[in-house]
Amino acid sequence: MTDTVLPPDDPQALAEATAQAMWSRDRAAQALGMQIVQVQPGRATLSMQVRADMVNGHHICHGGMIFSLADTAFAYACNSGNHNTVASACHIDFLAPAREGERLLADAAVQSQAGRTGVYDVTVRREDGSVIALFRGKSCRIPGEVIAGLQQADSAH
Amino acid sequence: MTDTVLPPDDPQALAEATAQAMWSRDRAAQALGMQIVQVQPGRATLSMQVRADMVNGHHICHGGMIFSLADTAFAYACNSGNHNTVASACHIDFLAPAREGERLLADAAVQSQAGRTGVYDVTVRREDGSVIALFRGKSCRIPGEVIAGLQQADSAH
Amino acid sequence: MTDTVLPPDDPQALAEATAQAMWSRDRAAQALGMQIVQVQPGRATLSMQVRADMVNGHHICHGGMIFSLADTAFAYACNSGNHNTVASACHIDFLAPAREGERLLADAAVQSQAGRTGVYDVTVRREDGSVIALFRGKSCRIPGEVIAGLQQADSAH
Amino acid sequence: MTDTVLPPDDPQALAEATAQAMWSRDRAAQALGMQIVQVQPGRATLSMQVRADMVNGHHICHGGMIFSLADTAFAYACNSGNHNTVASACHIDFLAPAREGERLLADAAVQSQAGRTGVYDVTVRREDGSVIALFRGKSCRIPGEVIAGLQQADSAH
Repeated sequence: MTDTVLPPDDPQALAEATAQAMWSRDRAAQALGMQIVQVQPGRATLSMQVRADMVNGHHICHGGMIFSLADTAFAYACNSGNHNTVASACHIDFLAPAREGERLLADAAVQSQAGRTGVYDVTVRREDGSVIALFRGKSCRIPGEVIAGLQQADSAH
Repeated sequence: MTDTVLPPDDPQALAEATAQAMWSRDRAAQALGMQIVQVQPGRATLSMQVRADMVNGHHICHGGMIFSLADTAFAYACNSGNHNTVASACHIDFLAPAREGERLLADAAVQSQAGRTGVYDVTVRREDGSVIALFRGKSCRIPGEVIAGLQQADSAH
Repeated sequence: MTDTVLPPDDPQALAEATAQAMWSRDRAAQALGMQIVQVQPGRATLSMQVRADMVNGHHICHGGMIFSLADTAFAYACNSGNHNTVASACHIDFLAPAREGERLLADAAVQSQAGRTGVYDVTVRREDGSVIALFRGKSCRIPGEVIAGLQQADSAH
Repeated sequence: MTDTVLPPDDPQALAEATAQAMWSRDRAAQALGMQIVQVQPGRATLSMQVRADMVNGHHICHGGMIFSLADTAFAYACNSGNHNTVASACHIDFLAPAREGERLLADAAVQSQAGRTGVYDVTVRREDGSVIALFRGKSCRIPGEVIAGLQQADSAH
C-alpha cells in the first residue's frame, strides 16, 4: 500500500515517483555513491564518481563499476512505468579506461518495448563528453509494481 | 622491478604470483569482499558473499555486483600469464536472482586465445551449484606486465 | 496432425523426429547446403561447406553465413524437445576467417534451460578442429510444437 | 593498382567508391539479393527481400538471413573509409519475425571509432518502419585497403 497520489496519465510524474521509490531501497546504488541526474519515461541519467576503492589491479576503474553504473541507469529507465522489470541479459563494450576521481555519466534510453521485453541502450561518458562504454540491456517484466498499489489507486480515480 | 623469483617455465607458479600481485592493488575486488578461491593458467575461481549493501530496488542482488564478480574472475584468468590484459567487451545472461547472504562462486576459463585477443567464459553459481549467470568476456592484451620486470628476470636465467 | 508414432519417454527418438520435421520445411538451411550431422536432446551438430557464393568483399566467408550455420545448430538443439522455440538474442565472436571450399562444423549444446528461456553455446570449427567462431544464443519457447499433435498422442498412451 | 581517381578529402565519394568496389566481389550479398540503398562515411543502408528459400522450420525468415543483412550493412559502414575492416564480434536482438515476401531495410551507423576498433549499430526494419532486430557490431581494422592503391594515389596529389 502507498500513500503516493499521482494524477492519472502523467508519465513524467510516474517516472519520478517510481525512481524515488526504487532509490529508497537501492542500497547498492547508494553504496557506490551514484546520483540520479534525471528520469523520464523510458530514460534515465545517473552519475558516479570513480572512488579509490573502485580501482582494479591495472590502476583503472574496475569494469564491474562501470557496468554497475550503466546497469543502474538501465534499471531506472526500464522501471519508469512502475512495472517491476529486471535485466535478462546485458552487453557492454569498453572503449576507454576511467581513472580515479573522474565523474561518469550514464544515459539510458529505450530502443524497443514489446510485450514484456525491452531493449535499452546506455552510453557512459566522462564529464568532457568522451564515451568510455556502450551498454545494451534486455529487460523482462516480472509480476508486481515498483510502487505497490499505485496502479490500482490510479484506476480507482 | 620486482624481487619475485620464479622458476622458469612454471605456468602454475606464474599464475599464482600474478594473481597475488593483482590482488594487492585490486581495491575494487577487496572492497566487494571477494576472495580468490584458486587460479590456474587461463582459469580462476572467485567467491563473493551478497551483502546488504549489494541489494537493489527489487530486493535482490544488484546485477552490477554479479557482473563485477564474473568480470573479476575473468580478469584473473586472462592475466594469469602475466601479460597486462583488459576486457574489451562482455556479455552476461542473468538466469536467476541472488539473495542477501548467499555466497556466489564464479568460475572463469579460457575458450580461445589468439594473438592479443581471447575469449573467456565465466559461470556464476550459488553454493548449491545452481547457475545464476553466464558471462562471456573478450580480452585484449595491452603493453606491460602485471609483475613488471618478471619476464626479463626469467629470460636472464 | 501427424502420423509419427514415438515410444513415450524416448528423448533421443523425439530429438531425431523433431529434427527431421524441422528440416523438411527449413528451406534456408537446405539452400545453404547444410547437413545435420547428429542431434541429441539439447544438442546438435551441423555442417556446411563454404561455397563460392558465400564469400564477401574481403574474399573470405561472409560472417552472416558463419552465423547462419551456428544459428541453425542452435535451432536444432533448442527445438529438440519438440516445443516451438525461437532465438531471442545471439552473440558471436569471430576468431578466424573461413575460406571458400572449407567444410565447417557447428556444435550446439544447452547451457541452461529454465522455464521458457534457454542459453545455448555453439562452437564453429574447421575440419582440422581449429575454432573460427564462438556463438551464444538465448532461446524463447513460443506456443505450439514442431511436430503438431505429437505430445497429445504421447499423453494418450 | 586501381584507375579510380577521386578528389582528395571527399569522404562521400570515397564511401561510394569503396562500396562499389566491395559490392563487385561480395558474392554472398549478391546471392541473397541485397541492394545498397545508400552509403555515407560511417553509415550504410541495405535492403533485402525475404525469399522462399530464406524461411526456416518455423515458417518465418531464418535468423541467419536477418543477421546477414545487418552484418552486411555493418560491413559497408565500417569499410566506408577504404581501410580493410572486419567484424570481431556481433550481437543481435530479435524483436519480431519477418515473413516471406517482406522487404527488410538495415540502417548501420558508427557509434564509436578509436584506433583500429569501432562499434556500429544496425536497426533492421520492415518497410512499414516496424523494427524487427537490433544489431551491434564490433569492427577491427586489418592491413590493406578495399580499393588497393587508392590512398597512395591520393597522397600523390
